[in-house]
Amino acid sequence: MSLDKRVSRYHQLLNKYKGLIIVNPLMTGGKLPDNVAEKLLEEGWLEVGYSLCYDCIEGRSDTLGFPPVKSFLHDVAEFFGGETAEHTFGCRAAQFAVFKAISMKAEEGGFAKVAVVDSLCHYTTVVAAELCGVSLVEVPNTGYPEFKVQVEKYAEKIEEVKSKFGKPPALVVLTHVDPYYGNLANAEEVGRIAESYGIPFMVNAAYTAGVMPVNMKAMKANFLTISAHKSMASLAPLGFLVIRGYSGDVLKSVSTALEWSKRSFPNKMVNLFGCSIGGLPLISAMHAFPYVVERVKKWHEELEKVRWFIEEMEKIDGIKQLGEKPHNHHLTHFETPILWEISKRHKRKGFFLAEELEKRGIIGVQRGLTKHIKISVYGLSWDEIKRVRDVFYEIIDRYTREFNIRDVGVEVKERG
Amino acid sequence: MSLDKRVSRYHQLLNKYKGLIIVNPLMTGGKLPDNVAEKLLEEGWLEVGYSLCYDCIEGRSDTLGFPPVKSFLHDVAEFFGGETAEHTFGCRAAQFAVFKAISMKAEEGGFAKVAVVDSLCHYTTVVAAELCGVSLVEVPNTGYPEFKVQVEKYAEKIEEVKSKFGKPPALVVLTHVDPYYGNLANAEEVGRIAESYGIPFMVNAAYTAGVMPVNMKAMKANFLTISAHKSMASLAPLGFLVIRGYSGDVLKSVSTALEWSKRSFPNKMVNLFGCSIGGLPLISAMHAFPYVVERVKKWHEELEKVRWFIEEMEKIDGIKQLGEKPHNHHLTHFETPILWEISKRHKRKGFFLAEELEKRGIIGVQRGLTKHIKISVYGLSWDEIKRVRDVFYEIIDRYTREFNIRDVGVEVKERG
Repeated sequence: MSLDKRVSRYHQLLNKYKGLIIVNPLMTGGKLPDNVAEKLLEEGWLEVGYSLCYDCIEGRSDTLGFPPVKSFLHDVAEFFGGETAEHTFGCRAAQFAVFKAISMKAEEGGFAKVAVVDSLCHYTTVVAAELCGVSLVEVPNTGYPEFKVQVEKYAEKIEEVKSKFGKPPALVVLTHVDPYYGNLANAEEVGRIAESYGIPFMVNAAYTAGVMPVNMKAMKANFLTISAHKSMASLAPLGFLVIRGYSGDVLKSVSTALEWSKRSFPNKMVNLFGCSIGGLPLISAMHAFPYVVERVKKWHEELEKVRWFIEEMEKIDGIKQLGEKPHNHHLTHFETPILWEISKRHKRKGFFLAEELEKRGIIGVQRGLTKHIKISVYGLSWDEIKRVRDVFYEIIDRYTREFNIRDVGVEVKERG
Repeated sequence: MSLDKRVSRYHQLLNKYKGLIIVNPLMTGGKLPDNVAEKLLEEGWLEVGYSLCYDCIEGRSDTLGFPPVKSFLHDVAEFFGGETAEHTFGCRAAQFAVFKAISMKAEEGGFAKVAVVDSLCHYTTVVAAELCGVSLVEVPNTGYPEFKVQVEKYAEKIEEVKSKFGKPPALVVLTHVDPYYGNLANAEEVGRIAESYGIPFMVNAAYTAGVMPVNMKAMKANFLTISAHKSMASLAPLGFLVIRGYSGDVLKSVSTALEWSKRSFPNKMVNLFGCSIGGLPLISAMHAFPYVVERVKKWHEELEKVRWFIEEMEKIDGIKQLGEKPHNHHLTHFETPILWEISKRHKRKGFFLAEELEKRGIIGVQRGLTKHIKISVYGLSWDEIKRVRDVFYEIIDRYTREFNIRDVGVEVKERG
C-alpha cells in the first residue's frame, strides 16, 4: 500500500477502550478529573502544539506568568515540602537531571560516581544512572513473599562503597513505592541515614506523589522525582523534580560558550534540556492540581478499598497478594495459580484473562500474564470495585467448572 | 494565601489568546488541523495520562500495535526518506540520543569527541552536546545581512579537527533551517562532505520536517531530528528521530546488569530513556499525519505567501528582512528601526508592539522586542495575512504621526 493510502487510515483512529474501567496500576493515578478534558478543549489549549508559549520572554517555560507556570511550580514545591520545583518530560527526566548533577559533582572529587539504590527501583533509575555513568549498588530486599527493602542496610552499603572507592557514594536513592509489589518503603529512616553521612538523598515518588501524602522535608529528601501522568491526574508526558538544597547543582545553566559566534545560553538549564516545554500536559496538571490536593487527604479511603479488594481476591482459590501486608498502596501484585491453570487449558492461552476482562468492560491487566497479575482499583467507586471482583469470580467460576480444575488440587474457598 | 486557597484558582485557568491569529514562528507549524482536538476529546484520549499504554506488552511505546505506533513510526520513517523512526520527548531528546551514541562511539576510539556544527544551530544542539561531553566546532556564516552558513567550509573545519585531535570529528551537524533568520542550508552539499570523510551526519529539521519537503536520503543524512509540536501540527512535547544506518549505536539497550537483584532491561533503549511514552501528543501526531503529508505538497503556496508578506513589510519605513533573499522559509526576521523609534517614545516602551498587535487579534511577536522581530505567516489564509500586514501598517501609521517620527529621518515609502 502506498504511503498516501496508508496515512489516510489515521483519520479513523478510534479508541476502543474509551470509557472502560481501567485497572492498570500505571494508569489509575493518571486519570484526569471530571470535566478537565472538556475544559482543555473549550479553552483552546489544544489549538497549537506550543500551547504554553504565547507569552514567553525568557525562553524558559518555568518563568511564565501566563499560563501561571511560575506560581504553579511554587505551589507544587510547597505541596510536597520542597523549596523549588521544575517540570520535566517525566519522572525519568527528573531522575536524569539529578544523576547528571551528582555525576558532575563526583567528578570534582569528594564522592564516588556511585549511587546506593533499593533493589526494587524502577528501570528509569537504572537508565538515568547509565546515561550519566553512575554505578548502582543495591540494597537487598527480603524476597518472597514480602519483598521488603531492608532500609536499615543502607548504612552497610554506604560503608561498602566507602571502603571500596575511598569515598562515599554521590547519591542515595529510594523508590518510595516500588513498581513490582507496591511496597511503601520507610523513607524517613533512609533519609536519616543519608543525612548522617552527608550524602544527597533522592526519593522516587512516581507512584506516590499525588495519590497519598508525601512530604520530602519529613523524609529529609533533597530530590523528589514525580510522575504527573502516573500519579497527578495529568496528561503524559510530564513529571516534576522538587528540590531541597542542592538546587544550584541541578538547575545550572548551559556552560558552553561557542567560539565563532560568541553565543552562550545562560537562560537555559542544561540538565533540563534547556527548557522542558510542558505544553498541554502541564496545563492539564494545573487544572488537575486542586483535585489532587484534595484527593490526597482522602488516601485512607482509597487504602480501605484496596485492602477490601485484596481480601476479596484472596478468597479465590490459591490467590495470594505479594508484598507487604497489610498493603499500603494501590499497586497490588497477586500470585494467581488458578488463572495459570486455566490458561494452560484455554485456547487463547495466557491471553484469555485480559480478553475475558475486556469483554466485561475492564481493561489494564497486562495481556498474556496469568501466573502473576498487577492490578489497581485506585480511584474506582465501590460499585466499580465490586464489579471488578465479581468479574474475576465469574471468569474463574466459569473456567474452573469448564476445565474441571479441581483435578489439579486448587482449593475452592467459600466466598462472602 | 494558604495553599488550599491558591490552588482553587487553577479551576479558573482561561486561555486569553484562544482563537487569535498566531504569528510566532515557533508555533505556526504546530497548529493542529481542524477537528483533531475535538476528535481527541470524543475518542476519550484525554481520559487518562498514559493514554497509549492500554495494550502495552513489551514495555516500550514504539512496539505498540494499538494505537498503531509501530506502523506509524514506519510511515514517518518512509515519509522522511529514512529507515527507522522513534518518537522522542522533542527534537532536543532526539538530538541527545544521537550525541550520546556518538560520544560513546568516540570513547571507543577512532573519532574525536567533537562535532562540527553550523554557527546558527539551535541552543538544544548545544545542550545535547554539553550533556554528552561533546565539544562543538562552528562553521562560520556570512554575517549581516544574509547570515548564510558557509557550507563549503565544513571540509575545512573537519580538517582542523583532524589536525588538532589526530582523529576526525564524531559527528557533522547541520540545522536545516536555522532559528534566527530562517535560512535554508544546503544539506545535500554538507551530506556529500560528511560522506566523503565517513562521518555520521545529523540534520536538525525542527523547522522543516512537516512543513516542507524533507528527504534525508537525498541529504545523505544519517540522523534527522524533528519537532512534532514545531512542524508536524501536533501537541507538545513530541519529536522524532529518523535514522539511516547507525541505528544500532543509537537504539541500543540498557546495558546495566544489577548485581543483587540480577535485573537487566534488554527491552529498554537507554538513549531514549527506556521508553519515550508518547501519550496524547503522539496520538495527536497520528491524527495530524495525513494533513501533514498533504500540506508539504503545497509548500510552494506557503512560500508565495511568505514572500508576498516580506515584500509588503519592506514597504514600511526602513523595515528590512534579514537572512537569505529570496526567502525560503516561513520564519522571517525583520530589522524594524521604525518600531524601535516608536518604542523609545511610547509609554509602554518595547511592549507597545505586542500589546497593540494583541488588541487587534494578533499574538506571537515576542513581548518587549521592537528593534528586530521574528514572525511567521505560515498556514494563515490570504485574508489573515493581509490582516496582519494591515495591522502593522495601522500601528506604524498611528504612532509615526502621533510622535512625529519623520523628525528622526525615517523614510516613508509609498505602499501598494
